[in-house]
Amino acid sequence: MTVVSHLLTCCLLAVPPAEAQDTDQAVRAVLADQVAAWNQGDLERFMKGYWESEQLSFFAGNQKTAGWRATLERYRKRYQADGKEMGRLAFEELSVEPLGPDHALVRGRYRLQLRGETPTGLFTLILRRTPAGWRIIHDHTSS
Amino acid sequence: MTVVSHLLTCCLLAVPPAEAQDTDQAVRAVLADQVAAWNQGDLERFMKGYWESEQLSFFAGNQKTAGWRATLERYRKRYQADGKEMGRLAFEELSVEPLGPDHALVRGRYRLQLRGETPTGLFTLILRRTPAGWRIIHDHTSS
Repeated sequence: MTVVSHLLTCCLLAVPPAEAQDTDQAVRAVLADQVAAWNQGDLERFMKGYWESEQLSFFAGNQKTAGWRATLERYRKRYQADGKEMGRLAFEELSVEPLGPDHALVRGRYRLQLRGETPTGLFTLILRRTPAGWRIIHDHTSS
Repeated sequence: MTVVSHLLTCCLLAVPPAEAQDTDQAVRAVLADQVAAWNQGDLERFMKGYWESEQLSFFAGNQKTAGWRATLERYRKRYQADGKEMGRLAFEELSVEPLGPDHALVRGRYRLQLRGETPTGLFTLILRRTPAGWRIIHDHTSS
């Protein structure tokens, strides 16, 4: 690989700084709204961060969930069923990396404060710029 | 959201079919070479699928590994240390989704046949088109 081809590729791949900053802010706003919604016990508003599509994919540990509705049901069963609680959610160690103009990769850690425990784990999110705003099209979470 | 704006957005987001097919083939070739390398016990060749950068990120369960070298060391410790084995690797349930012209999202499942067990789990990979070819810039694996 020559230096010239390397430089050319860097130029082609790079997202302009102003656009990258816009993406960063818009994506962080979606996630901040998710956290605020969760901490108000508002799962429906939390779910607005996700692409409302059957093509949404959600990986947790060794389990796949396909589609927005099934993802909502999974959250309901785990956090709103009898004896369950939503607790207090925080996202930490967040990084937002634009992947071209219309997608972003988010790496982060969640921490959930429940009555008896504080589970934590890592997540990878892929967001897409949609007509409705930036939305998570794929979530991979593990602990 | 009007139908027109929706159509416009779809057109803007879509990767041309021929290009998407090229990406699909190129990305699958990288992964197929990783599997072939693993099954020959060739960890160095397996690692060629990863971006040789300190910015490579590798999430496994609740553990982050940062950088290509640390990722190689992690694999060495887990699969090439005394009493360890690499076993026989397979990737299953693969999907490749282009994210613009220079990135791709891969969802899949790994299955590792060892002497006494057959661990399996899910992975999310983000690949980037680099001067050297398509390379994994982020790997999230969980079981």
